[in-house]
Amino acid sequence: MKYAVLGTGMVGHSLASKLVDLGHEVRMGARDADNEKATAWAAEHGPNAGHGSFADVVGWAGQVIFAVSGAALLDVAAGLPAEAVAGKTLIDVTNPLDGSAGFPPTLIAELSNTTSAAEALQNRLPGANVVKTLNTMNHKLMVDPSRIAGAHDVFLCGDDDAAKAEVRAMLGEFGWSDPVDLGPLAAARGTEGVLPFWLRVMASVGNADFNIRIVRA
Amino acid sequence: MKYAVLGTGMVGHSLASKLVDLGHEVRMGARDADNEKATAWAAEHGPNAGHGSFADVVGWAGQVIFAVSGAALLDVAAGLPAEAVAGKTLIDVTNPLDGSAGFPPTLIAELSNTTSAAEALQNRLPGANVVKTLNTMNHKLMVDPSRIAGAHDVFLCGDDDAAKAEVRAMLGEFGWSDPVDLGPLAAARGTEGVLPFWLRVMASVGNADFNIRIVRA
Repeated sequence: MKYAVLGTGMVGHSLASKLVDLGHEVRMGARDADNEKATAWAAEHGPNAGHGSFADVVGWAGQVIFAVSGAALLDVAAGLPAEAVAGKTLIDVTNPLDGSAGFPPTLIAELSNTTSAAEALQNRLPGANVVKTLNTMNHKLMVDPSRIAGAHDVFLCGDDDAAKAEVRAMLGEFGWSDPVDLGPLAAARGTEGVLPFWLRVMASVGNADFNIRIVRA
Repeated sequence: MKYAVLGTGMVGHSLASKLVDLGHEVRMGARDADNEKATAWAAEHGPNAGHGSFADVVGWAGQVIFAVSGAALLDVAAGLPAEAVAGKTLIDVTNPLDGSAGFPPTLIAELSNTTSAAEALQNRLPGANVVKTLNTMNHKLMVDPSRIAGAHDVFLCGDDDAAKAEVRAMLGEFGWSDPVDLGPLAAARGTEGVLPFWLRVMASVGNADFNIRIVRA
């Protein structure tokens, strides 16, 4: 597969590196085509790794992963030509966090509760199919669920079943055996709303190596 | 112990009944002293069960459980004399849900994200000690964790250690062996924010007999 990974932070690095390790072609996207981190990442990850501007890597890719900051998400989306994303699966792993008042961050009010970052992204790019997933955990765990022993969960939601099936396949390659389907993309209001809880749990646990398990009767 | 349980809904009934079963004295509070549901509950639960107006049962009690609707919480608190709650432990199990636009409800904006129902309650009744707990699960599970096999979690948070210790003891009587302490009362922003997620999980699971487990490395 041909994945564009938008974002050069830890989340983007973990996802892009894992996808290359799995044998996929990956291009890391940034605002500037010659972004230093994206250039360095591509240089270190062999012939299947590349980089470029957001628009360039999205136009090239079959699947697009949004791993930018939640605050930047809609700006990045606004810079993408409609034809570059038409019919493509957009995998949104972002969280709409506002850190302007310090730690812990709050949710960006305009992107939470009665809507979500994922829905806002879908509204901005109506010709594409957004699937929300992986945003409820640390980036290392996203691509290596075996870091934690025992069963624990990843969630996904979206409005297009074919796009969800693509994402389930990707999650399976990462090692997730049974992702929990929460239904329509609006369920991202739920999973994005977990982050303030997740951050409090992290403070209690003392590190980010934990995850949520839904335990059933 | 002498518990006032404010609220005559399913949550109030489950908590009040369990506390009577455990041998505590319990009075169920309602807006009207002769509330029909509270009167019936008291009549069915023996000599340790009583009922009365919110102010009356709070003045009598040693511990107070707020099990009213999130939308009514601050109105109920505003009706309580400061001397009735002074120094007492207030156990807040509410969720600030706004169901005015149908299912699933959203969070009440004024009581979420940058604050919480628990903090608003504490601000309204500064002479008392609010502890948030039990709001992340179905009411049956609150008082009977054995409904679900295997480990799963209850959370608590608050600013007063002695009040938290009282709540840990109550949770222990309910069957919770190791409640997760999330720290200060402001952590209620996290646990109350779980509800939109919980409701989506309920829709996916198909019933309310599930709970969250924090799985650690």
